[in-house]
Amino acid sequence: MIAELVTTGSELLLGQIVNTNAAYMARELNQMGIDVCFQTTVGDNRVRMKEVLVHALTRADLVITSGGLGPTRGDITKEVSAEIMGREMEQDEDCVARLKEHFARIGREMTENNLRQAMIPEGAHIFVNHAGTAPGVAMERDGKMLVNLPGPPSEMKDMFQRSLAPYLVEKYGISSIIYSRVLHTYGIGESMLETKIDDLILAQKNPTLALLVRPTGVIIRITAKAESETAAEALIAPVENEIRARLGSLVYGADDEKMEEIVGRELKTRGLTVATAESCTGGLVASRLTDVAGSSEYVKGGIVSYTDEVKAKLLGVPREILAQHGAVSEPTARAMAESARRVLGADIAVSTTGLAGPGGGTENTPVGTVFIAAAGADGTVAEKHSFTGTRGQIKFRASQAALALLREELEKNKLCR
Amino acid sequence: MIAELVTTGSELLLGQIVNTNAAYMARELNQMGIDVCFQTTVGDNRVRMKEVLVHALTRADLVITSGGLGPTRGDITKEVSAEIMGREMEQDEDCVARLKEHFARIGREMTENNLRQAMIPEGAHIFVNHAGTAPGVAMERDGKMLVNLPGPPSEMKDMFQRSLAPYLVEKYGISSIIYSRVLHTYGIGESMLETKIDDLILAQKNPTLALLVRPTGVIIRITAKAESETAAEALIAPVENEIRARLGSLVYGADDEKMEEIVGRELKTRGLTVATAESCTGGLVASRLTDVAGSSEYVKGGIVSYTDEVKAKLLGVPREILAQHGAVSEPTARAMAESARRVLGADIAVSTTGLAGPGGGTENTPVGTVFIAAAGADGTVAEKHSFTGTRGQIKFRASQAALALLREELEKNKLCR
Repeated sequence: MIAELVTTGSELLLGQIVNTNAAYMARELNQMGIDVCFQTTVGDNRVRMKEVLVHALTRADLVITSGGLGPTRGDITKEVSAEIMGREMEQDEDCVARLKEHFARIGREMTENNLRQAMIPEGAHIFVNHAGTAPGVAMERDGKMLVNLPGPPSEMKDMFQRSLAPYLVEKYGISSIIYSRVLHTYGIGESMLETKIDDLILAQKNPTLALLVRPTGVIIRITAKAESETAAEALIAPVENEIRARLGSLVYGADDEKMEEIVGRELKTRGLTVATAESCTGGLVASRLTDVAGSSEYVKGGIVSYTDEVKAKLLGVPREILAQHGAVSEPTARAMAESARRVLGADIAVSTTGLAGPGGGTENTPVGTVFIAAAGADGTVAEKHSFTGTRGQIKFRASQAALALLREELEKNKLCR
Repeated sequence: MIAELVTTGSELLLGQIVNTNAAYMARELNQMGIDVCFQTTVGDNRVRMKEVLVHALTRADLVITSGGLGPTRGDITKEVSAEIMGREMEQDEDCVARLKEHFARIGREMTENNLRQAMIPEGAHIFVNHAGTAPGVAMERDGKMLVNLPGPPSEMKDMFQRSLAPYLVEKYGISSIIYSRVLHTYGIGESMLETKIDDLILAQKNPTLALLVRPTGVIIRITAKAESETAAEALIAPVENEIRARLGSLVYGADDEKMEEIVGRELKTRGLTVATAESCTGGLVASRLTDVAGSSEYVKGGIVSYTDEVKAKLLGVPREILAQHGAVSEPTARAMAESARRVLGADIAVSTTGLAGPGGGTENTPVGTVFIAAAGADGTVAEKHSFTGTRGQIKFRASQAALALLREELEKNKLCR
């Protein structure tokens, strides 16, 4: 079965946003064994959109659009699709009810044009939007299926996962799937990593291996084709195990696991609490730790000490240390972590102090210099990093290093035995 | 003149990479006044690629491909294009010379298949590749132009800037550009916003207006076509002024300005410092404030109080308030802001306390309930919000609301006169 993705919207045509929706849908469909052979982008122009959709239906069995389901006059995807499939638009009362409920909940007035979102092509299958207001629809005609999904990525993804994917699996009795396992590494470069698993990469067939550089570190993607997830898992397992055996703790997580989730799990299983003392990361470490649902169980809190004054007064970093070694130094990082642990009453504390730039760099302390420390009942560890990139990249890399240090010490059962 | 972009390659179809080439080319062409009405992605499959290119030439005057110019058997874009334009492939000696020179320079042996890159459709205009080995080509037939560019972004961009752009300007005597101004709003929904400027949207011609929903709020894009940026600015100015007049402070910034930058600027011009006290945003507000280069001039620091204990001990929120009203309440938000201001020695402090979810919601305090307060020398203001979405979205929306409240109070010269 051949699928075509049709993404709409002038932001895409103008190149003002990158088309992440097409990439996401393509990845998901391919994993279901549905071949995406064409991707088309067109604007909110009735004539062109109609031409594109009609043509798509001649060369594909399944056409999925994203975008143009909003309440405004510019949102025409549903009407154009209905016209092509030869259906009238009619108001769906369930949709109206959900819209009213939504606006009541967020306490905003619902204007007339919102009702346009409740207009549905007659007889279409409706996908409820759990992340926004615009419902999605699926229509069939002459053995072809046309699906309309919303444009905002969060709404499109939620609807794809929750409703469309199961709907397609059932419709097409999908049998063979493409299944991937992603291994996240930290602390090793792409080329070094390649040399460690070179033979596996050369021997690859099914599953296949790919190395990709990500802001979090290098990831390894293992992809298998099989008739079920279980069968794919069976093909992937031996390769994954071999890689894990060779890389040891360089692999910190799999699939969508994030470093902050790993750290959270380690803290939870050990019944430990954590606190942060941040300078150059400015709260990013605490923010990432608290991105995890349930983190209130183990995150006590944190202190962002952006001035020496706050480092000294609130954190109690000895002024001599600041005076003698400077704010960006290992002694300061150590003192910050130890004080945060004490002040916030946590079992473990992590600290960051460095130069995110772009300004403030010196001969001895160039932009990108970051000191990180972790303090626990059994002592304090610290490391120095030299990061490159923009201010934002340096902030993120420093936060990743801080979380990685926490993980490492927790797994070694150091700091709090 | 209408242009279509055809990007090729299986990584795009598989969704393994995001299509940044299409966005780049679209942006550049639009700025040259060339309307990109279609973008298509197809794999390295002769039949499908031919179908896509033939169809593209029926609906566009200019078709630009990227990808498939490499040395391998899978690279077929040039041959398929030549076939469509009715041309033989012939070896170009200049290209051969440049290839040999390239491999000599990098000290690698040139394999036979590299010569495929020197095969050029007869009479085609050649674009030298200064960033790689694959030359680009341009062919014309029946008033239509077909251009082949390489796939690697660095090579494509270099060739586009250096060779294709000037070539098109000269060919088409391009004299007009498209120029956009983006206005960022906060605190108003898409549909309500549309009703406020409906007449302007209906009257739009040049410039045109578009409303787009972003996590930061709704944005208004004003796009003008003119012979120069100055002329475009002149067309945009009256519309922008009218919109700003109608929306007032609902518009907080323009183009790529971020809320945290606006707040930073307001603080700097007033010589004020800021501090944060965060519960549900877990450090995100501080992190966003410190994303701005030079923020160390006005950010004192912040406290992430993720437990009542920290709220009481470190922030000094009266235990009676926590006991009587609960952590997620306006009195607590007010006390947090006032304490943070005192403890961190800042002129202004902002606080957030709420439920980011997914768990913890109750009848009276559902997930998404967030109280925000800002405290200054002249008093404290607070507001209640009800956000929807995932934990991450609620965190971000709460941080945006906190920054928006800071901005509002600063612009009103409240809190610190």
